[in-house]
Amino acid sequence: MQDKVIWKPSTMLYPLPVVMVTCQAGGKSNIITLAWTGTICSDPPMLSISVRPERHSHGMLLESREFVVNVPSEEQAFATDYCGVVSGRDTDKFAAAKLTPAPASVVGAPLIAECPLHLECKITETRELGSHTMFLAEVVAVQAAKSLLDRNDRLALEKAGMLVYVHGHYYALGKELGHFGFSVRKKKAKPRTRKKKA
Amino acid sequence: MQDKVIWKPSTMLYPLPVVMVTCQAGGKSNIITLAWTGTICSDPPMLSISVRPERHSHGMLLESREFVVNVPSEEQAFATDYCGVVSGRDTDKFAAAKLTPAPASVVGAPLIAECPLHLECKITETRELGSHTMFLAEVVAVQAAKSLLDRNDRLALEKAGMLVYVHGHYYALGKELGHFGFSVRKKKAKPRTRKKKA
Repeated sequence: MQDKVIWKPSTMLYPLPVVMVTCQAGGKSNIITLAWTGTICSDPPMLSISVRPERHSHGMLLESREFVVNVPSEEQAFATDYCGVVSGRDTDKFAAAKLTPAPASVVGAPLIAECPLHLECKITETRELGSHTMFLAEVVAVQAAKSLLDRNDRLALEKAGMLVYVHGHYYALGKELGHFGFSVRKKKAKPRTRKKKA
Repeated sequence: MQDKVIWKPSTMLYPLPVVMVTCQAGGKSNIITLAWTGTICSDPPMLSISVRPERHSHGMLLESREFVVNVPSEEQAFATDYCGVVSGRDTDKFAAAKLTPAPASVVGAPLIAECPLHLECKITETRELGSHTMFLAEVVAVQAAKSLLDRNDRLALEKAGMLVYVHGHYYALGKELGHFGFSVRKKKAKPRTRKKKA
């Protein structure tokens, strides 16, 4: 039980992913860093990104209706922040942030080669919500660094050194606390009696 | 630069928040744990949640058009997992997970008193996407634990011991890596020369 203060409405949902979205139109590409993103459907796999109309990428997204979500690791923390602060109108962010464009497998927008994980997306719908346009999109391909595969070819994302965004601050992932279903999993028989978990 | 494998489309966007959503209809309330959630607009402040139609909460959300996003801390990791595994059709999750309902300030759905942060929401739109219904919602009030306020009344979320969800695993937050804008902030004059950050 915790003593609470009541505040006016705000965007206080955290922690969030922070990703570099790449887009391309008219022969030019750009990178925009976003935290307003999330998974919205499992089948088909879909995610959304929300972008202010005044951002340089907004017109490119409307025109091409495609983008790539590049999930950065800790190593790209500096570049991730940088691509969220400067504008692609005046700056070639790939060059300025020392990031390497690489071809995607399905969409026209480039990948950021340094990132460990990419979700190639096609926009299915746009919604004008106020300060932001929400782009709903289907994931059409996923690319992952081979170094993240474990012995069973499972994607061991925790190896990537992921970035987490909390209210203006970037964090690393901490210790693992459990896995989905741990609260109801039957304990395996052990040689000695164990106290039941609270 | 990393060697990549190309995979079929999937919901690989991580890390994500993992939250307990409370809803109420017909005099009954329920809790559903979700990771398919995210901020979608700053002004008005909006977020989305995605819920499978077969989930017990789905009908309650459609009927009441309101819910509360309860952001858990590490202390609620077990309850968060539990409320994502069992169904409210057969179980009173508040009782079973030893969670305490408390009145919200604007909406009819109860808060989970043990959680440090609550976003009270009103649904503005629903979209049928496939496996999931996406509910777009406006945040109408925020409640935060007084223990999270720092000396300047800033919400110090990092104090909460937040939960992060990555591909079936729950993590704690790790060390801070920087704050928004750190990549372009001018260094303050220091008594000794510092090497430039790479």
